[in-house]
Amino acid sequence: MPVPSPNLTPAFNILRLSHVELVVRDLAASKAFYADTLGLQVTYEDSDTLCLRAMEERGHHCIVLKKGDVPVANVMGFKVFSEEDIDRAETFFKGKGLPVSYVERPHQGRTLRTTDLFGVPLEFYHKMDRLPSIHQKYALYRGVKPLRIDHFNFFTTNVDESVAFWNEMGFRVTEYTEDSETEKLWAAWMHRKGGVHDVAFTNGRGPRLHHTAFWVPTPLNIIDLLDLMSTTGYLPNIERGPGRHGISNAFFLYVRDPDGHRIEIYCSDYQTCDPDLEPIRWDLKDPQRQTLWGAPAPRSWFEEGTVFPEVEVSEPSLKAQPIIAP
Amino acid sequence: MPVPSPNLTPAFNILRLSHVELVVRDLAASKAFYADTLGLQVTYEDSDTLCLRAMEERGHHCIVLKKGDVPVANVMGFKVFSEEDIDRAETFFKGKGLPVSYVERPHQGRTLRTTDLFGVPLEFYHKMDRLPSIHQKYALYRGVKPLRIDHFNFFTTNVDESVAFWNEMGFRVTEYTEDSETEKLWAAWMHRKGGVHDVAFTNGRGPRLHHTAFWVPTPLNIIDLLDLMSTTGYLPNIERGPGRHGISNAFFLYVRDPDGHRIEIYCSDYQTCDPDLEPIRWDLKDPQRQTLWGAPAPRSWFEEGTVFPEVEVSEPSLKAQPIIAP
Amino acid sequence: MPVPSPNLTPAFNILRLSHVELVVRDLAASKAFYADTLGLQVTYEDSDTLCLRAMEERGHHCIVLKKGDVPVANVMGFKVFSEEDIDRAETFFKGKGLPVSYVERPHQGRTLRTTDLFGVPLEFYHKMDRLPSIHQKYALYRGVKPLRIDHFNFFTTNVDESVAFWNEMGFRVTEYTEDSETEKLWAAWMHRKGGVHDVAFTNGRGPRLHHTAFWVPTPLNIIDLLDLMSTTGYLPNIERGPGRHGISNAFFLYVRDPDGHRIEIYCSDYQTCDPDLEPIRWDLKDPQRQTLWGAPAPRSWFEEGTVFPEVEVSEPSLKAQPIIAP
Amino acid sequence: MPVPSPNLTPAFNILRLSHVELVVRDLAASKAFYADTLGLQVTYEDSDTLCLRAMEERGHHCIVLKKGDVPVANVMGFKVFSEEDIDRAETFFKGKGLPVSYVERPHQGRTLRTTDLFGVPLEFYHKMDRLPSIHQKYALYRGVKPLRIDHFNFFTTNVDESVAFWNEMGFRVTEYTEDSETEKLWAAWMHRKGGVHDVAFTNGRGPRLHHTAFWVPTPLNIIDLLDLMSTTGYLPNIERGPGRHGISNAFFLYVRDPDGHRIEIYCSDYQTCDPDLEPIRWDLKDPQRQTLWGAPAPRSWFEEGTVFPEVEVSEPSLKAQPIIAP
Repeated sequence: MPVPSPNLTPAFNILRLSHVELVVRDLAASKAFYADTLGLQVTYEDSDTLCLRAMEERGHHCIVLKKGDVPVANVMGFKVFSEEDIDRAETFFKGKGLPVSYVERPHQGRTLRTTDLFGVPLEFYHKMDRLPSIHQKYALYRGVKPLRIDHFNFFTTNVDESVAFWNEMGFRVTEYTEDSETEKLWAAWMHRKGGVHDVAFTNGRGPRLHHTAFWVPTPLNIIDLLDLMSTTGYLPNIERGPGRHGISNAFFLYVRDPDGHRIEIYCSDYQTCDPDLEPIRWDLKDPQRQTLWGAPAPRSWFEEGTVFPEVEVSEPSLKAQPIIAP
Repeated sequence: MPVPSPNLTPAFNILRLSHVELVVRDLAASKAFYADTLGLQVTYEDSDTLCLRAMEERGHHCIVLKKGDVPVANVMGFKVFSEEDIDRAETFFKGKGLPVSYVERPHQGRTLRTTDLFGVPLEFYHKMDRLPSIHQKYALYRGVKPLRIDHFNFFTTNVDESVAFWNEMGFRVTEYTEDSETEKLWAAWMHRKGGVHDVAFTNGRGPRLHHTAFWVPTPLNIIDLLDLMSTTGYLPNIERGPGRHGISNAFFLYVRDPDGHRIEIYCSDYQTCDPDLEPIRWDLKDPQRQTLWGAPAPRSWFEEGTVFPEVEVSEPSLKAQPIIAP
Repeated sequence: MPVPSPNLTPAFNILRLSHVELVVRDLAASKAFYADTLGLQVTYEDSDTLCLRAMEERGHHCIVLKKGDVPVANVMGFKVFSEEDIDRAETFFKGKGLPVSYVERPHQGRTLRTTDLFGVPLEFYHKMDRLPSIHQKYALYRGVKPLRIDHFNFFTTNVDESVAFWNEMGFRVTEYTEDSETEKLWAAWMHRKGGVHDVAFTNGRGPRLHHTAFWVPTPLNIIDLLDLMSTTGYLPNIERGPGRHGISNAFFLYVRDPDGHRIEIYCSDYQTCDPDLEPIRWDLKDPQRQTLWGAPAPRSWFEEGTVFPEVEVSEPSLKAQPIIAP
Repeated sequence: MPVPSPNLTPAFNILRLSHVELVVRDLAASKAFYADTLGLQVTYEDSDTLCLRAMEERGHHCIVLKKGDVPVANVMGFKVFSEEDIDRAETFFKGKGLPVSYVERPHQGRTLRTTDLFGVPLEFYHKMDRLPSIHQKYALYRGVKPLRIDHFNFFTTNVDESVAFWNEMGFRVTEYTEDSETEKLWAAWMHRKGGVHDVAFTNGRGPRLHHTAFWVPTPLNIIDLLDLMSTTGYLPNIERGPGRHGISNAFFLYVRDPDGHRIEIYCSDYQTCDPDLEPIRWDLKDPQRQTLWGAPAPRSWFEEGTVFPEVEVSEPSLKAQPIIAP
């Protein structure tokens, strides 16, 4: 089997993905997209920063938008179980020869900045400013009614290597796509928090951020978003879907924000907390892996993504071709 | 305006579409599709016939499947308001120089057989065998939970002429697509029973049946059908959707039965009973007319349809091109 | 059978219910309820009037709120098929010895004012100011996403007599509740536009308006409204539901506006346009008639209603007792 | 605050609740309820045992039904993270002076049997027979489409003491109801797996099992179950709901199986994996805590439950009165 055995005793305890910081060129346009259209809640706003959270979250932010000229993804944030886990993380990354530093992050406590093996910028923290719960403030729900951040998906030049590294960090593979000809991984989905994934890796020019996903209550909320976006000037921002994933079995939609950052709207995957959960294997040639209903993804979905600042993008090692919509 | 004023005092009173008779090559395969998968209820069955009804219908059948070698559509059935309306219909069609005859139809009372101006085979009746209501027999609901037959859509070589004829019969235009270059109709939707349509016409090689549609309770039922079909061997039968129509605003899915007859699953259109309802105009070049969410239909959707027996198919008069998915 | 044969050739052609005019004491509070909470659209507003329409309607108003001290229902509006039907209506009501007059109604054309046999104030019109369609302006949808006015329900002192009168007007019974002991009608549902009802009658002190109902897309919209109302100060306004009606099979919720006028939110009933539709009979003692799921209605639901101005309320003739929630 | 600080380093690692074993008097009747009506899948069946699993589960069973005369709950099963955690559990319970033994359990590996402080029978295991995944076998979905077991809720004579004990085991309080007069806990919800709860405790005669809950995809699935149960002879089995909980914010329904065991159908709560999640406090007098929409629970919901064999039931220490439906 091309996926490693899960590391059940990782060096430090990552609880879950937490937040992403994206650079956007026009904060007002981004606010119109993330707050007014998707329905995230603004928690902080000034002339170059917009923080937002989703409806059941009590941490200060799940997405931070910074004004800038080049729409990169600055960092991927993860919450760890305790303050001590930050120290253990520092030890782990130093041991890998990866750069570590402590950074001042508004609304966050002690935060370790580092990267994964390929340079994906990461930060780990334990404390974040807490906000009152709003999950029952139904007057605030709008758009697609996003409840929480669900996962990140990265393009990587070598999925096997990314998986091995993140497996060491304790992320466990739930599903994967194998290129049966080379027996290499085309893609893999890995979790900490008990859903299908906190992070995923897809073979492609990388490292780059493929998308950030939000969990919503039901598929009808995704239909509502499509109706809304298509009649409020966001028709070009609809990229792929709606549909039912083969991998994860979740109902999904992919959209692009005003800067091209990809956002997935996602619901209805399944519980994965059992350490003896058998990863589900898909073959790269299976037309139902991405959409159970068969429709292939458009070319843009395979090619476009968000770069990380000052991280060089390389060609993937795996040259296999997925099925691309004509 | 390219659509005629509604004829508010037609010669005879057509209540609504009623049923379609389709020829299928393998009744068992068709039963697996219509009953086991879509969820229609079998009301009669023998070695060459299968009758089905939908869950809120009390008439004996909304679809009749006849075993045969060539998958044609034998006749489109309509219910009229009274027995006298059958006589008035006879007068109307005779006056048009169209063939009329009375036919013996199982489970139906007196039935007039005729055709429209282009040869679409029609039958009109008032009485059909009545069955007990089953709309609250929730143990019987399955598949997409089809509630009732909703409309027919025909390819026609001349939409303007079809519309003029059916308008005389009392069908009122609710929405239409105009080819602004020629000011001719590309398509039109016409109703009797108060929804967006009982019949529609689309420019194309014709006359042929484009599809028959069933109404379902909610978009989630359509998602259920997609999940079911894609995992029970019917993946190739999914043709287009799901999506929100621009025209009609209904949520839809198009599938193909084992013989290629096209079925639409449809919900959430709007009430049209007002005689002064203004028809909604769409331009042929509007990418949102067919799918509000923008995705164009596949080539098969524009080209494939079911022929009527012994009715010659001709090229359409309008040569405009719709937007076709690549 | 205690219900009359349908009158298939009524003296004049009523298309459908159209609107209700209610008196409210505080227009701002009513606007907060009907527009901000339910999601109807304001079409006219001044210091003593608020007009609203639902999302798929193109007529100017389905509900008119007039500022006043006593929260009565001023009139129940119906649209007729043609201008000539107004004249025929006048003849009909005069023939019944009922008062008729023509009234000036803002945003409406020629309007006949009269009453039914028991004094329920009615008005009939053909032309109403038309507004642009907004059914695809998804940014405007909010609250319970009300699509159109669906029906009125009246308390009446004698259901048999009300049914006979309205049957003469062409309303056809779709379902009814019989008190098997007396063989009298406890309640009846009657339609013009092809759904389960435009009007209904329930035995009780009357005549009074029991409720006005709006149609919404799915049961999830009703759940959304309950979540919204219960967390925005409208908890006391939730009267009964949600649930599935036995009668009509619709999914429902009853709420009370700031003046106590009862509003029903309703979806998923069935098509009734066939003149030979067999009315469904329910027994008064059947605990599933009002809620298929069995829960009886609260006492307020049987007792409270809106009076018509200067129309005396009398005790009902039928003394049977329904099942009331403890 | 009346709830203890979470124990973030429990003696042994409980992953999640796993299964319940219930005694039923008629296996065929129970099969008709759990499999044919709720939609659980039968995984084992003989003359005195029925095992079932839910649609996304890969463990052999989430519910075991044993034929017997007295409908008790034999044991509540929990899965632990590793084989070593079984040994640690043994040490923990022995240290509490509670009875421990190893039992042979079909389809389960090494299983430790013990009880909580009040005698609730518990078993802990790591290995259970694994079955093929069926979450994408959409032809198998029926009933309410149950996806997984979600939680247990127990009556206990002393919620504070139960909470303290289970907190030691690592269960963390997410929400609780306080009787403000005595500052004692009326109820508490505690989790391991990251949702609102794996177990909950409610003040009442105990210890007894209040209910077992299953997670479903959307509220519409719960409406489907109500429609199904109310028309297939299970009307008396509908106990409370549907509704939106105040506590947990989940959409719910409570039903009773043929032996009176209470089952909750549940969806849409929220993610709780953060160790610094602040427990939400409710006051016993708050009418919105159980149902955000205000409707109080029926008396049976407060009084009826399933006993554990040979475990004496005592009166609760807290005499406060909840709001009971009349």
